[in-house]
Amino acid sequence: MRTVEIIRKKRDGKELTSAEIHRLITNYCAGCIPDYQMAAFCAAVYFRGMNSSETLELTRAMASSGHGVDLRLVDGPVADKHSTGGVGDTTTLVVAPLVAAAGVPVAKMSGGALGHTGGTIDKLRAIDGLQTSLTAEQLASAVRKTGLAIAAQTEGLVPADEKLYRLRHATATVESPALIASSIMSKKLAGGADVLLLDVKTGGGALLTDHCRSVRLAELMVDIAAGAGLRAKAVISDMSQPLGRAVGNSLEVAEAIATLSGEGPPDLQKLSVHLAGCMLSLAGAADDGRAGRRKIDRLLHGGHGLQKFAEFVENQGGNPAIAENPSLLCTAEKRMAVRSPDGGYIASVNARTIGESAAALARRGGGQLDLSAAIVLSARVGDRMQRGQRLATLHFNQPLLADPGEIRRRVGSAFVIGDEPADPPPLIHNILGPQANN
Amino acid sequence: MRTVEIIRKKRDGKELTSAEIHRLITNYCAGCIPDYQMAAFCAAVYFRGMNSSETLELTRAMASSGHGVDLRLVDGPVADKHSTGGVGDTTTLVVAPLVAAAGVPVAKMSGGALGHTGGTIDKLRAIDGLQTSLTAEQLASAVRKTGLAIAAQTEGLVPADEKLYRLRHATATVESPALIASSIMSKKLAGGADVLLLDVKTGGGALLTDHCRSVRLAELMVDIAAGAGLRAKAVISDMSQPLGRAVGNSLEVAEAIATLSGEGPPDLQKLSVHLAGCMLSLAGAADDGRAGRRKIDRLLHGGHGLQKFAEFVENQGGNPAIAENPSLLCTAEKRMAVRSPDGGYIASVNARTIGESAAALARRGGGQLDLSAAIVLSARVGDRMQRGQRLATLHFNQPLLADPGEIRRRVGSAFVIGDEPADPPPLIHNILGPQANN
Repeated sequence: MRTVEIIRKKRDGKELTSAEIHRLITNYCAGCIPDYQMAAFCAAVYFRGMNSSETLELTRAMASSGHGVDLRLVDGPVADKHSTGGVGDTTTLVVAPLVAAAGVPVAKMSGGALGHTGGTIDKLRAIDGLQTSLTAEQLASAVRKTGLAIAAQTEGLVPADEKLYRLRHATATVESPALIASSIMSKKLAGGADVLLLDVKTGGGALLTDHCRSVRLAELMVDIAAGAGLRAKAVISDMSQPLGRAVGNSLEVAEAIATLSGEGPPDLQKLSVHLAGCMLSLAGAADDGRAGRRKIDRLLHGGHGLQKFAEFVENQGGNPAIAENPSLLCTAEKRMAVRSPDGGYIASVNARTIGESAAALARRGGGQLDLSAAIVLSARVGDRMQRGQRLATLHFNQPLLADPGEIRRRVGSAFVIGDEPADPPPLIHNILGPQANN
Repeated sequence: MRTVEIIRKKRDGKELTSAEIHRLITNYCAGCIPDYQMAAFCAAVYFRGMNSSETLELTRAMASSGHGVDLRLVDGPVADKHSTGGVGDTTTLVVAPLVAAAGVPVAKMSGGALGHTGGTIDKLRAIDGLQTSLTAEQLASAVRKTGLAIAAQTEGLVPADEKLYRLRHATATVESPALIASSIMSKKLAGGADVLLLDVKTGGGALLTDHCRSVRLAELMVDIAAGAGLRAKAVISDMSQPLGRAVGNSLEVAEAIATLSGEGPPDLQKLSVHLAGCMLSLAGAADDGRAGRRKIDRLLHGGHGLQKFAEFVENQGGNPAIAENPSLLCTAEKRMAVRSPDGGYIASVNARTIGESAAALARRGGGQLDLSAAIVLSARVGDRMQRGQRLATLHFNQPLLADPGEIRRRVGSAFVIGDEPADPPPLIHNILGPQANN
């Protein structure tokens, strides 16, 4: 079948065969299918979607386009986690050490920041000396040594995804559940873990703002995992307001350390414990999610997660003293308060605006990032505010590319203040996967 | 606005501004927008459509990408006609001479054959010596001399359309009313005529098989014409079965000559008279369509259309004697009958299958075309057939790339024979434009 006929078939909403999907990806990677045909194919998938078996085949075709990570020498099932990206989403730096502290090895590869959402690799760059550019072999060996390694996604891990990702960004075909699911899951399959916890964010600050599309994405990923023999669960968690208090690389690391010390923001701690408990249950290190959460709670309050975090930092070349003394992390010189223009109740906090504003504070000339720039929130949905009370604080260094007064105005506009008390959104909306409710 | 944002805006179903559309086309022609972004844009338009004002702006942007034809030195309003393409659609060769014989100059540029539908230029190539490769100046001068010229679309007339057309074919984004309308109308605007009759085919043998999409296409084109100051009407005519009896270049020319002699198939004659009458009315050479048809009828039966056809052939370098002696046209050596397997009534004749089969009979090595190859139909919807009675005749030359027995089988399968009498489809479904029903 000619490429144009495969595009037409999907355009007309028909199901593609496994052979058609594999041919498409293989030939695209080989340079035999031009970008313009692949762009039209991605647009057809954007509008028509793909069912679970098509998405599984697309994922498999992409995963096999490169060389995966071999974790077979690591003892026991290896766990991985993935967040679809949020604002102030520091869970990885809390969850991964806790799971590793429970004896379940964690091998995680992360991408960079994506639009208004942060990226774990940028956060880790705030730790002086810490190396995230590991080869597949270095990653496996780091996991064998301390039970936890986090690395930047290696070039060439999934070449099909790298090529498609750039194309989708240039052609407004990013926000497709099938394309997002296959992009994420191809990297997860290539990453070599046995167990996978998916944190699918939903709400204004998420990649997919619409709840139905978030659920669809979660379903597709859980189905792909099942088809590919990977034990997985998906937690659909709230991203209508930022998670935790800090939004910005260095201060998010500090917040993760605080959380591992039992002193973090309640929402970040609660979600992290939930995710980590799920991972233990998936890995067979707890009977169910509830038992997993109890175990994680004990590890957290016993300081074992923080200790594992320090081991991880040291193992990857950073200074482990930051675990005890987060003030060793870089900080910004300037502070600017954002104050409430009225009294009342916080009805909503626009996570996307906060994420974009934090990115604007961090942006430096030449595409550089000021890792110490951040926004720290003092108010969350449901909080009662007095007029003039602090909503947030901007942390930044001069000179700034953007106008800090303008950013203060934007951050202020992210808070909607009403007369009536508002209920905070639930932290977790749905859980999908085998024995989803345990 | 960046290109990806224009794509996203259309992808999300929003209306684009004139400036966005013009920027897109100008930058695409200048090579500043890559094919993959334009492919994603075309796919977004395929799925989301464009309203009349967006389509007008797209048409204008495309029309102004090249150098148009200057017909200002031709006396009176110049008429043009366009068919969206059908099987056995020989109307241009009947209509254009009749309109010119009524004193309304006709300047027509045509494309080549398109898929299973024939093209006027290929038909004219069946006339020995006739030149259709005219420059814009030669076209204008030929019209001035005999009141009628038909030329192949000149290279560079609408560069944006040439570039987009190739891209759409490779990306399954052809069948979009907005993209088809802008492609056709940009060439018509650049073609310089004042009056335009659009013959929009609908049914299985048409480019747009769906009636609603055909009506949408006709509406868009009439609106574009109105917005661009071109007097236009659209006739939505039936293409569920082939038009006339002959399907194939040389025999279609012979059929046009027979029709101009008053001896053509009734459907071809009736549609041609209708279209030509419309054109006279649009050009102000008749009070309304009815008066136009009466005038055309007189010209046809007085032999004036045939005489104008002969003048046209001579003016463009062909032998005018073919008008009196069509046997001078090339003919195929072989004949093969397709016979009815059963007695009954013809319920339908699949125009697309007939068109594809005729194209298969004409296909020669090296992309060459056997202009004498044809299928001549002996039966139409509603006809009563005896078992073994002739349905059609294949005309072809050996050696054939395809197997003639297989083509005979396919042509036979195009005829559906039922037990009950079937009503022939209406020749004209709708008429759109100013005073559409006159």
